[in-house]
Amino acid sequence: MDDRLKKQLEFSLEIDKVKNIFRQTHLSGKGRNENDAEHSWHLAIMAYLLREYSNEKIDIAKVMLMCLIHDIVEIDAGDTYAYDSEALKTQKAREEAAKNRIYSILPDDQKAELMALFDEFEAYETPEAKFAHAMDNLQPLILNDINEGGDWRAHGVTEEQIYGRQSKTRLGSEKLFEVTDNIIQKNIMNGNIKRTDDNRRS
Amino acid sequence: MDDRLKKQLEFSLEIDKVKNIFRQTHLSGKGRNENDAEHSWHLAIMAYLLREYSNEKIDIAKVMLMCLIHDIVEIDAGDTYAYDSEALKTQKAREEAAKNRIYSILPDDQKAELMALFDEFEAYETPEAKFAHAMDNLQPLILNDINEGGDWRAHGVTEEQIYGRQSKTRLGSEKLFEVTDNIIQKNIMNGNIKRTDDNRRS
Repeated sequence: MDDRLKKQLEFSLEIDKVKNIFRQTHLSGKGRNENDAEHSWHLAIMAYLLREYSNEKIDIAKVMLMCLIHDIVEIDAGDTYAYDSEALKTQKAREEAAKNRIYSILPDDQKAELMALFDEFEAYETPEAKFAHAMDNLQPLILNDINEGGDWRAHGVTEEQIYGRQSKTRLGSEKLFEVTDNIIQKNIMNGNIKRTDDNRRS
Repeated sequence: MDDRLKKQLEFSLEIDKVKNIFRQTHLSGKGRNENDAEHSWHLAIMAYLLREYSNEKIDIAKVMLMCLIHDIVEIDAGDTYAYDSEALKTQKAREEAAKNRIYSILPDDQKAELMALFDEFEAYETPEAKFAHAMDNLQPLILNDINEGGDWRAHGVTEEQIYGRQSKTRLGSEKLFEVTDNIIQKNIMNGNIKRTDDNRRS
């Protein structure tokens, strides 16, 4: 087998490990914790189905690929819970090291391409990155909502924390932020998300 | 929320169930059984990385989407093991019923689009379907190979059975069939795949 194909297959086997990286989010039906691979699969399909709601014109194939690869670095870096402020401080450094090791398994051209795509996602600047992040925000939100806010309750997540992350969905899709806002407000009313008294939105 | 978006989000929640459909294949490192969602994620990334080996020019976004959705019908129909001849007899009917129920959750245009894409995959005729199937064959093969053929041994899979499925990889990629053939031959030599004496290839 030639060296190029050998590297591509080695990388294909390496990313199998993404299936063992578990997130804080639980599957619908109050199921088990979700892993990064199935989460990424879910985002890519949702991106395709909901692409009409992007604020800006997007290359949907690029968004889907971004969704599919965005958590590969967690093979080494682990999952960082969106509301874990201590872990968030070291996330960038952990993920940079992981990115270099894992993508270096690929042939140079594909290494460069996928690293650039990951960096683009992280930078949150292009229309594609904004829409991919909108999916990365919306997907756990709808799972948590259908599970009666179990994950928010377990972690004592506050209104301020959740808007800190979820309000950025607006950058990718005003329409999907409306849905997001409705879901958050409902879960604040239900007591699933803690109201932040000194930081009321209304 | 308007009816269209409501349907799209309902479908997005419905497909969460794909994460609970488990396959016969085990994760690398002799891990747990793989589920359909993470399997589909794996195929889509492999399709992107290996697209240069397709025999024919392909629309890679279409191949990726095909990979991502190809097992959604298994929410109702269940996973049918590739070498279970009894289950294979009823697979088509079970999957047709599932297809109708599940995709009918979507708005009509998206229902029609995804059903057509699934049918195209099943028909195994277009360049995209052939390459998506090549991924669907190659991915469990490399997992099984790295796991020292555990799944083939557990099911007593024969040379004839495995070539019956895997030789069709050639329709999508001659190059990846060479790899496939080498892996199969190695595993026949190792005793992981049963030699079929009356059907020797050489």
